[in-house]
Amino acid sequence: MGLSKKDILDIESLSAEEIRLILETADSFKEVLGRDIKKVPTLRGKTVINLFFEASTRTRTSFEIAAKRLSADTINISASASSVQKGETLSDTVRNIEAMNSDVIIIRHPASGAPHFIAKRLKASVINAGDGSHEHPSQALLDMQTIKEKKGRIEGLKVAIIGDIAHSRVARSNIQGLTKMGAKVVLYGPKTLIPKGIDEIVGAHCNTPLQVAESMEEALSDADVIMMLRIQLERQGVSLIPSVREYSRFFGLNSKNISLAKGDAIIMHPGPMNRGVEISSEVADGSRSVILDQVNNGIAVRMALLYLLAGGHKDA
Amino acid sequence: MGLSKKDILDIESLSAEEIRLILETADSFKEVLGRDIKKVPTLRGKTVINLFFEASTRTRTSFEIAAKRLSADTINISASASSVQKGETLSDTVRNIEAMNSDVIIIRHPASGAPHFIAKRLKASVINAGDGSHEHPSQALLDMQTIKEKKGRIEGLKVAIIGDIAHSRVARSNIQGLTKMGAKVVLYGPKTLIPKGIDEIVGAHCNTPLQVAESMEEALSDADVIMMLRIQLERQGVSLIPSVREYSRFFGLNSKNISLAKGDAIIMHPGPMNRGVEISSEVADGSRSVILDQVNNGIAVRMALLYLLAGGHKDA
Amino acid sequence: MGLSKKDILDIESLSAEEIRLILETADSFKEVLGRDIKKVPTLRGKTVINLFFEASTRTRTSFEIAAKRLSADTINISASASSVQKGETLSDTVRNIEAMNSDVIIIRHPASGAPHFIAKRLKASVINAGDGSHEHPSQALLDMQTIKEKKGRIEGLKVAIIGDIAHSRVARSNIQGLTKMGAKVVLYGPKTLIPKGIDEIVGAHCNTPLQVAESMEEALSDADVIMMLRIQLERQGVSLIPSVREYSRFFGLNSKNISLAKGDAIIMHPGPMNRGVEISSEVADGSRSVILDQVNNGIAVRMALLYLLAGGHKDA
Repeated sequence: MGLSKKDILDIESLSAEEIRLILETADSFKEVLGRDIKKVPTLRGKTVINLFFEASTRTRTSFEIAAKRLSADTINISASASSVQKGETLSDTVRNIEAMNSDVIIIRHPASGAPHFIAKRLKASVINAGDGSHEHPSQALLDMQTIKEKKGRIEGLKVAIIGDIAHSRVARSNIQGLTKMGAKVVLYGPKTLIPKGIDEIVGAHCNTPLQVAESMEEALSDADVIMMLRIQLERQGVSLIPSVREYSRFFGLNSKNISLAKGDAIIMHPGPMNRGVEISSEVADGSRSVILDQVNNGIAVRMALLYLLAGGHKDA
Repeated sequence: MGLSKKDILDIESLSAEEIRLILETADSFKEVLGRDIKKVPTLRGKTVINLFFEASTRTRTSFEIAAKRLSADTINISASASSVQKGETLSDTVRNIEAMNSDVIIIRHPASGAPHFIAKRLKASVINAGDGSHEHPSQALLDMQTIKEKKGRIEGLKVAIIGDIAHSRVARSNIQGLTKMGAKVVLYGPKTLIPKGIDEIVGAHCNTPLQVAESMEEALSDADVIMMLRIQLERQGVSLIPSVREYSRFFGLNSKNISLAKGDAIIMHPGPMNRGVEISSEVADGSRSVILDQVNNGIAVRMALLYLLAGGHKDA
Repeated sequence: MGLSKKDILDIESLSAEEIRLILETADSFKEVLGRDIKKVPTLRGKTVINLFFEASTRTRTSFEIAAKRLSADTINISASASSVQKGETLSDTVRNIEAMNSDVIIIRHPASGAPHFIAKRLKASVINAGDGSHEHPSQALLDMQTIKEKKGRIEGLKVAIIGDIAHSRVARSNIQGLTKMGAKVVLYGPKTLIPKGIDEIVGAHCNTPLQVAESMEEALSDADVIMMLRIQLERQGVSLIPSVREYSRFFGLNSKNISLAKGDAIIMHPGPMNRGVEISSEVADGSRSVILDQVNNGIAVRMALLYLLAGGHKDA
């Protein structure tokens, strides 16, 4: 079976079945990554473009490695060196890239909805690698892959997502995906960083209820998965949080409050981490941390996305 | 037959026969680009260097994709991260790059003549990807390829080139190439942006006369091809043109004045476009626009150049 | 025989036998580079990361070409675009990169010891591509390769290293390597730029004595090899040297003082050169200069390092 979509723009528009297909495809690529020669010829002759309007090391590198493992040719374009400076419209920029026989365009953009705007104008496949504070679907997929791998399932688990929910595209994508897969999602963070009515809005088209916790205790107690969010000090500064020290005290995960969760709870973080702020070093480096597994699964999940969009339908 | 040249530095030094060879070679690569696996092993083991002293998305990406389609290894070097900052001479920089067994060096440089200076000092092949306001030969070649493809020939066509002729390396290369191929070239633009005596200077060593029009009407009437130039707002600012609004009114192409040209005239632009300045969106997106065909042909033409310089002579 | 090490962090920790193995392996790769198709499939499916926290054209390009010649996939990460800006620790950055199934991480960092710090935390191989004013082992190896190639041996030669010894990682690595290989090393430069007691400190664990010359005459007389160091005008400015003109007069190599050395002495420089400062153009471009041979040997030596770390032990 193939994916019937041309693009991966968000988790919101993916069905539980489509998510399952992506994760299963990623499983098979994990096997390839375990081989001595970690490479398959699947996308030979295809061109994958990394078009990044925001700086990113890990996401760009992860997509680039994934594309190379599939033998695609990869091109990196960063906005700072681009025609955007010369007053070209976003639409013209991407149509030009498409006209160079590109097969998949991976885009990160500070404006929410930019990948959707682009995808409508192109025949090439578009993958959203993060758009403003909207979605970051490949991150949620690798998070779900990691949960599935570590806990054997997603359905029925209690997942606590803690931090700046309002500005986090990672949170938004995970809320969509995890509730679709039947997890019970509990959000917690500073009141100023929890969008009002999020439980109702998201809950409406999801299979399971979404809950906003009133305290760290409530969020963590009996959790199977704890997903800490990065506090983006470089973005909102300290205007929406009391202070870094207080943030850490009230909303940070440490070796004390982790005991509220289940004994076998796993700890996740999308990175880059602010050690000592949202997560203590003991927890980040502890035995329950699956943070580097998330990074590792990123390659397999992105190989799966590239394969399903640019190669998979051939075999369907 | 092969190309007897080591370098592609400008259209001025190419004969009509050499231009014809390049365009025919590009034709055969367009066939490769239509295949499911858009890749040939022609330049396997060769190294192609993109050495850009000016920012560029489309030209750098186009050369990089072209090289990868031929299975060459590609290296990108941008001046901002280079030894140039450390006081090294241009000559030392390129001789170092050559000493790393590079086969082709593609250079963009703000100084006119820089690629010629380099080519004399190297055994490796040099391709000029734009030098100051001098020449941009691969752009003119892809423009000629597009005209040939759309109109069946170049000879005898009336080509109107409109805009900032004085600062445009695209115009300079196209004037050279199109007149050599037997087109009738007509230039138009603000008086301050038409070099004095250009019709005599260029006309002298060309097969066909070069004409400077006195009005937009004269330039457009009966044209087979309309080539609009980008007004480089980031370079000369508004000092040499009255104002953006007036420029658009007197020198811009729109759905009204396009009717002066032949009914089947094609519209070209080298990009990036300033929509609403030198070209209206209706015209840019209209059925006569071949702007994205130009971009698409860029890959095939650049494959042809790389093949003829680094691979073609082997078979000659 | 293979290399028993996981990393190449400095010349200090390499034995003479290990240096010999690397240089012999480089010899065999020079043969590959002379072929028409300069490529071997040795590292297919391996991933080599260039992680540069300092700008570098030649070293990054040289490693990238070396990796591509071995058919490895290469990824470039420059610090300016990296998560480092987002407050991530160096340790987290590299562990993330490793988690993406990277095989070799090549690192340049302004802090002395950074590659050692990293290597301890990773299973992946680490190559130091220059750390502060500490070491630059691949440069010293390519220098030794060039000396061996041009003079037939290293043992017993007089090698004069002239310039800013104190801040030069190139000098530090060469002093280690050349004395281990049995050369007689003589240092010369402004008193302020010669570390006090360097002859004793280094001499202690080396096979041959290290000497600090009192004059340019003493340094150059009877030298077989003259290695000029770059005066890093962009780093220490002119605070530690009298003036550029005086530096050139007292510490620069020119067509006059070169006659003090042996008639067949070779001239080396790690680049980028300040022509007219530490070295005159006549000497840099003269028949005894092996400066471009150094660059050329850089590819073969770096192929040898990558092969011995990521591929060689397979066959051992």
